[in-house]
Amino acid sequence: MSLRIDLNADMGEGFGPWPMGDDVALLDIVTSANIACGLHAGDWDTMAKTMAGAVAGNVGIGAHPGFPDLQGFGRRRMDIPGDSLGNLVRYQLGAAQAMARAAGGQVRHIKLHGALSNMSSEDKALAHACYSAALSVDPSIIVMVLAGTAQQVAAEELGCNTACEIFADRAYNDDATLVDRRQPGAVIHDPETACARVLEMLREGAIIAESGKRIPARIDTVCLHGDTPSAVALGRAVRTGLEAGGAVLRQFDGAPLSAPSA
Amino acid sequence: MSLRIDLNADMGEGFGPWPMGDDVALLDIVTSANIACGLHAGDWDTMAKTMAGAVAGNVGIGAHPGFPDLQGFGRRRMDIPGDSLGNLVRYQLGAAQAMARAAGGQVRHIKLHGALSNMSSEDKALAHACYSAALSVDPSIIVMVLAGTAQQVAAEELGCNTACEIFADRAYNDDATLVDRRQPGAVIHDPETACARVLEMLREGAIIAESGKRIPARIDTVCLHGDTPSAVALGRAVRTGLEAGGAVLRQFDGAPLSAPSA
Amino acid sequence: MSLRIDLNADMGEGFGPWPMGDDVALLDIVTSANIACGLHAGDWDTMAKTMAGAVAGNVGIGAHPGFPDLQGFGRRRMDIPGDSLGNLVRYQLGAAQAMARAAGGQVRHIKLHGALSNMSSEDKALAHACYSAALSVDPSIIVMVLAGTAQQVAAEELGCNTACEIFADRAYNDDATLVDRRQPGAVIHDPETACARVLEMLREGAIIAESGKRIPARIDTVCLHGDTPSAVALGRAVRTGLEAGGAVLRQFDGAPLSAPSA
Amino acid sequence: MSLRIDLNADMGEGFGPWPMGDDVALLDIVTSANIACGLHAGDWDTMAKTMAGAVAGNVGIGAHPGFPDLQGFGRRRMDIPGDSLGNLVRYQLGAAQAMARAAGGQVRHIKLHGALSNMSSEDKALAHACYSAALSVDPSIIVMVLAGTAQQVAAEELGCNTACEIFADRAYNDDATLVDRRQPGAVIHDPETACARVLEMLREGAIIAESGKRIPARIDTVCLHGDTPSAVALGRAVRTGLEAGGAVLRQFDGAPLSAPSA
Repeated sequence: MSLRIDLNADMGEGFGPWPMGDDVALLDIVTSANIACGLHAGDWDTMAKTMAGAVAGNVGIGAHPGFPDLQGFGRRRMDIPGDSLGNLVRYQLGAAQAMARAAGGQVRHIKLHGALSNMSSEDKALAHACYSAALSVDPSIIVMVLAGTAQQVAAEELGCNTACEIFADRAYNDDATLVDRRQPGAVIHDPETACARVLEMLREGAIIAESGKRIPARIDTVCLHGDTPSAVALGRAVRTGLEAGGAVLRQFDGAPLSAPSA
Repeated sequence: MSLRIDLNADMGEGFGPWPMGDDVALLDIVTSANIACGLHAGDWDTMAKTMAGAVAGNVGIGAHPGFPDLQGFGRRRMDIPGDSLGNLVRYQLGAAQAMARAAGGQVRHIKLHGALSNMSSEDKALAHACYSAALSVDPSIIVMVLAGTAQQVAAEELGCNTACEIFADRAYNDDATLVDRRQPGAVIHDPETACARVLEMLREGAIIAESGKRIPARIDTVCLHGDTPSAVALGRAVRTGLEAGGAVLRQFDGAPLSAPSA
Repeated sequence: MSLRIDLNADMGEGFGPWPMGDDVALLDIVTSANIACGLHAGDWDTMAKTMAGAVAGNVGIGAHPGFPDLQGFGRRRMDIPGDSLGNLVRYQLGAAQAMARAAGGQVRHIKLHGALSNMSSEDKALAHACYSAALSVDPSIIVMVLAGTAQQVAAEELGCNTACEIFADRAYNDDATLVDRRQPGAVIHDPETACARVLEMLREGAIIAESGKRIPARIDTVCLHGDTPSAVALGRAVRTGLEAGGAVLRQFDGAPLSAPSA
Repeated sequence: MSLRIDLNADMGEGFGPWPMGDDVALLDIVTSANIACGLHAGDWDTMAKTMAGAVAGNVGIGAHPGFPDLQGFGRRRMDIPGDSLGNLVRYQLGAAQAMARAAGGQVRHIKLHGALSNMSSEDKALAHACYSAALSVDPSIIVMVLAGTAQQVAAEELGCNTACEIFADRAYNDDATLVDRRQPGAVIHDPETACARVLEMLREGAIIAESGKRIPARIDTVCLHGDTPSAVALGRAVRTGLEAGGAVLRQFDGAPLSAPSA
């Protein structure tokens, strides 16, 4: 039974004079990087530097597009029609592709950021608009989806290359949504507990909810959070723990999900 | 003797609720379009629409990057170091490539906009930084240069695919710079005069200065201005006049300039 | 019985190289101008010019703050918490005050723009956050509200100086909301019909719904739309029609609404 | 002989999710704060928080306007005509006034930021454009100038309230310009040395150049840098050292400079 898994983190989230996170340290831990594309974070110089680091570290490069909202860091919902959202995704993906190419690499995957991710995890049409836009630019791009959400359903329907993502440090509800951060136990701070959960999910091929319920799911990648002070230490502990538990850390291959049984 | 020539114009220069120019009409006249890339004009929706129009009209698509300055329309000089300028160009070029690809086309050429063009026509190092950045994204892209300026010298040194551009409606000084707009005769308003000049330059393979001086130059494309009320009428008259004079309007092929004799 | 009324229109909605509307002509028609404050439209140069025109024409100056969204022209809903919305309103109001002062005038009123107006017409807490923020900067500012909406309720509760606004060219539902633009008859294109309606509403002191229902309301100002090609002609016709019908066109005095009976 | 002096630092230079500097600690050290106004740094929420801190700490509030260039942090020169620069200054000053008022304070002074400061320290016309714009909004505002530069000359000619500023940690050339950072000794890292220099300058009423030359100058305020890791420690040491040397730390009163002898 395969325990192969990818670790991903958001990176390149500085802007101009303002740094964010310790990308250099994170690049030593993850196998895939989601790199901000300039509209919610990550100006072109930050992108260039982050891309170069990812190429040097043999870390898979992902475009991480978000809403055009620097002040809100792409975390504020915006009511943008699907056609325009598609263009927004294309624009950022293209910019990321060029920066990657100039750094000697290429964009392998795309992951939506912040409120754009939240909204598309609840609304399949929105996820579909974003993903089909990305595919219109690169038909072989791997779409990273939140396992068990409308994002996954959209990717299934599109039949595109996909990577399914879980969180190591968040508790799940029975419908595969995340337990509200304000609930006790919603966030897991202990790396050992986090690793044990991830390994169990990998072995069972299922998201395991707080209640114990198993939600069958393909699991390709685990999200690490990069923007907190303890992010690097936690990430390193998770990586070490997963390897100790027998997992092999490797970039996802991004195979399409099996088509839904209509 | 060949009178083959390309006609180019800036397009897609609206932003959000604000249109600029009559792109639909211009696409019927030009053979190449320089499309704004979002930072001085041309948001992603405008880009998508303009790209689609160019593809439908079989007009060559160019990325038209400028300074990140919407209010100043990229016409205000900014003091940005070469490395960062390179990233700025890559970012915009990549965005344009994605929008073009999604529209079923591709970016053939790049032309610098506004103050970025002015500065790089005076400063070879700056032109070199911008063009080599573009080539790092697409080694076969055609660089459109202002004939006779530092832009052309940079392109020659890079040995890249190049298109040399003249203005139909502007008088030239003896050093191939443009006569200051405030001088009498600097701007040519009569289409017949403009066409006669262009045809003569094509026949002689030289820029003809106000003084009558011939400055040998390869001439691949003629710039039409798109943002004035009379732009379309003038553009149509120039096209008709050039064809009447025996010129064949076709996209430039973008052959490299001969290498400078070191 | 008083038929005194104010006419207002949005102005200064250009940005950088892009004009919008014919402010010079509109300033001859209206008695109050709602001037964009730089975040959805109206850069500082446009503001300066528009303020100068309003001062010269003796037109009342209003700050017209909107969401920070140039591409969307402030018409896309954004999910911004009340505290931050308050700061957003303060920032734009202060900028407008400075521009007005430098032009020899002063900001008399404030009117919310686009999606910010729509959202606060539905959500009293949001209207309250915006208006109390404005009052924290200038306690005597006149708040212009959409008559019969949550905006009016918020202004009533705050006890602040208020101007109640109706639309000349839009049909009303029985709950004082506007009939959806897609319904037949929702938009009134004929100036005579528009004027007759406004005069009747002024005489009756009530919004008159499409059904004929009277919704008692103080009516202080009538909104003209400025951004369509026919805006100036329509505006002039409305002004002429109102005057012919006996209305006196004057800036609102902005008296507080009577306090709600607790 | 009076050794009264003000200490100022730039503050509120975060933006959205990105903090910068330790404003809380700095507010305990300085007597005046130069608060960014949203265009090169300092969004409205950051402004509100910083203003509230300054009011609570009884620190004098200054508007700190810069170029509209977030990515470049206002440190890249932009070629903006004087009229437009004036509007740019008015806009930011007004926004700062509103945020200060809402926080229970008021803007006492204005200090130009980054490249806008550098350019206006070299070009009197530019300084004049900025300062007269500020005075058109508030005729009693105190203009903080770099002692001995074109900024000071402009303020003298305007006859406005003025505060003259020196740097504690930078060596001066004989013409009162700063020694290039790349020269040895250009930056003074030792707080004791810095304090001794400042005290000597205050006693002598002159800027003391590296060469020992005395350049007579009114000295009202000393600039502390806030954006480096050691900024707070250095600032505290300078404050302590100045007080130990007999200086009284108080907000400048901003008296006009004596008019130039025409």
